Amino acid sequence: MDPKDVEVPPLKDLTIDNITENVHAINSRCEDPRFKYILERIVTHLHDFAREIRLSFSEWEEGIKFLIEVGQISSATRNEYILLSDVLGLSILVDSIDHPKPPASTDGTVLGPFHTHDAELAAHGANITHDADGQPCLILCTVKDMAGNPIEDVKIDIWETDSHGFYDVQRPGRIEPDGRAVLQSAADGSFWFKAIVPVPYTIPDDGPVGKLLKIMKRHAYRPSHMHFMFEKPGYDHLVTSLFLRGDPYETSDAVFGVKESLLTDLGTVNPEQEKTYDVKEGSKLIKYDFVLVTEQETRELREKNAMQAMQNLGLRMKIYHGLPVPDVD
Amino acid sequence: MDPKDVEVPPLKDLTIDNITENVHAINSRCEDPRFKYILERIVTHLHDFAREIRLSFSEWEEGIKFLIEVGQISSATRNEYILLSDVLGLSILVDSIDHPKPPASTDGTVLGPFHTHDAELAAHGANITHDADGQPCLILCTVKDMAGNPIEDVKIDIWETDSHGFYDVQRPGRIEPDGRAVLQSAADGSFWFKAIVPVPYTIPDDGPVGKLLKIMKRHAYRPSHMHFMFEKPGYDHLVTSLFLRGDPYETSDAVFGVKESLLTDLGTVNPEQEKTYDVKEGSKLIKYDFVLVTEQETRELREKNAMQAMQNLGLRMKIYHGLPVPDVD
Repeated sequence: MDPKDVEVPPLKDLTIDNITENVHAINSRCEDPRFKYILERIVTHLHDFAREIRLSFSEWEEGIKFLIEVGQISSATRNEYILLSDVLGLSILVDSIDHPKPPASTDGTVLGPFHTHDAELAAHGANITHDADGQPCLILCTVKDMAGNPIEDVKIDIWETDSHGFYDVQRPGRIEPDGRAVLQSAADGSFWFKAIVPVPYTIPDDGPVGKLLKIMKRHAYRPSHMHFMFEKPGYDHLVTSLFLRGDPYETSDAVFGVKESLLTDLGTVNPEQEKTYDVKEGSKLIKYDFVLVTEQETRELREKNAMQAMQNLGLRMKIYHGLPVPDVD
Repeated sequence: MDPKDVEVPPLKDLTIDNITENVHAINSRCEDPRFKYILERIVTHLHDFAREIRLSFSEWEEGIKFLIEVGQISSATRNEYILLSDVLGLSILVDSIDHPKPPASTDGTVLGPFHTHDAELAAHGANITHDADGQPCLILCTVKDMAGNPIEDVKIDIWETDSHGFYDVQRPGRIEPDGRAVLQSAADGSFWFKAIVPVPYTIPDDGPVGKLLKIMKRHAYRPSHMHFMFEKPGYDHLVTSLFLRGDPYETSDAVFGVKESLLTDLGTVNPEQEKTYDVKEGSKLIKYDFVLVTEQETRELREKNAMQAMQNLGLRMKIYHGLPVPDVD
C-alpha cells in the first residue's frame, strides 16, 4: 500500500496513554462494521488489561509462549483453544448469549472439543458404543416444539465417552467413530438408542490448559454426561448435554456446563421395557423430552436481549445481520 | 482431586450475569497473588468483551480457528503471536509500562519477532552483513549513563534485514547468522561496526496476522530501522531501534514503534572517516549516542507509575515482587 493512501493521523511517540486511540484510528478504515466493532473492543480490553495489571515484559513473553503452546498442541482430534475457552467460562457464556432460551425450552450447554462430523446415521434402537466394559443404558427421548407438538426428522448428534472416560478420538489409532451416532426423530418426535451409562472424566489435562488448572488449584473433572445436538431447518440449533443427578462433580464441573434442568435421574428398565426395547435385564435407563425453539423466536429474543444489554451499557447501537454494531448514522 | 475438597459455592445454572463471579470463585484458590490477579482480570475482560459485543457462536468459532492458526504457523524462526501483539499495539504498550524512561535516557521500542540468540560476538569495526546488494553504512555509537559517563562492557545485540527487507531467519536454509552481531562497548563507551542502510519492509503478511491487516485495510510496512538491545548488570535492559528520518512509512509503522527521539538522519562519511574507519567512499553514516538508566532507577519509576495508575483506577493495591497485586490485608 502506498503510504500516501494512509489517511490516519501520524503514528509516532505512542505512549501508555495514547496508544489505544491511535490503534483504533488506524483500524477505523475496516469496511465491515461488525468486524471493526469487535476489533475495537479487543484492542480496548487488551490495552486496559495491560494497563490495569502493569503487564511486564517477562509476563508478556510467558503469555505468548502459552498461547503458542495452546495452538501447537491442537490437532484434528484435539482443540486446546476450545478447552481454554471452556475452563475460562467463555464457552458457556457464548452459548447463553447466542442461544437464549424461553422458559419452557431445553437449555443449551457447552459443545466441548470432542464433537466430530463423521458419526454414522443410526437406526432407532441402535447400540452406539462397542465398549463391553460399559454399563448398558437405554435412552428413550422425544423432541417437541414449544407448543408440545412432536418434531419429525430432526438430526440428532449424540456423543459420549467410553467407560474409562475417553472419547473415541482420544484413543490412538481410531479408525471409525465409536460412542457417537446420528439419529433422526420419528413422526411422533421420538428417538431411542442403546449406549452406556456416562461416567465422570477429566478433560485433557496433559497440556497447557491442564497446567493452568493446576496453578489455579482446580480439578479437571466433568460430571457424567451425554452430549446431544439437534438440527432442523427452522429451529434454533441446540447444543446440550444430559447430566446424571448425584454425580460427585455435579457442582464443580471444570467447564461450568451443569444446569438443573439438564440433570436426569438414572433409572432401571422394567420387565416390559426389557422386552419392548430388547435390552438386558437390569439395564439402566435415561428418559428425557427435549423442547426446541424456532429460529425466528430465538433470533427475536437474541436481538431483544442484545439491544437491552447495549442500552444498559449506555451504548447507542443498531442490529446489523443479527448482531449489534455502533449506530453512527 | 476429591470433589469434597472443592471449597467453592456450587457451580450450576450459570448465566450471562453470574458466570464471571463464579469463575472468579473457583479460581480464587490460586496461591500466587500476582497470577490470581492476572487471571481474574483476563476472565473479567474476556467475559465483558463477549457480553458487550454479544459474541455469537460462529464468531467464537472463527476466533478459535484464528488463534490456532496463529499458534500453528509459529516456529523456531517465526513468532506469529508476537506479530499479533505488535500490530494490536500491545507490544509497544508493554515496553512503555515495563521500561519507563526518564527524559534524558534513550527510548525503547518493540522487540519484534526476529531477535535470535545465536549472533556472534564481533569486534569493533566488523561488517555484520554479507549482503553485497546493500548500501554500505558505517555506524558510530556510544553508550553512556544518565550523568554522561561512558559505560564499558555493555553487551549490544544488533540485527537488521538484508537489502531486500528479509531477516536471515526468513531465508530458507539459513545456516549461520547474518545481518546480526553482538558487540561490547569499549572503555570510552563507544562501539562501531559496518552494516547496510536499513530498508523498509513488510512484516510477514502471508499468515493470519497478514489476513487481519488486510481486513483492517492496513499496510504491513515497517519504516527502515536497525534493532539494538543493550544489556549490562545494574542497568535496565534496553530494547530499541534507530529509524531513518524521512522514510515513507515513518508515520504509519505497522507495529507502532517509531519515536521522534529514535529518528536519525542518514549521513555520508567524510574523507577523514573513510580513512579512519576503512570504509568505501560514499558510504552512508549513522551516528547515535545511547543513554542507559540504572535498574534501580527504572524499578523505582516503574513502581511509582504503577501505584499512581492503580490509584487513578481507584484500586487498593500493593507491590509484590515489583508488580501490583490487590491489597487484601
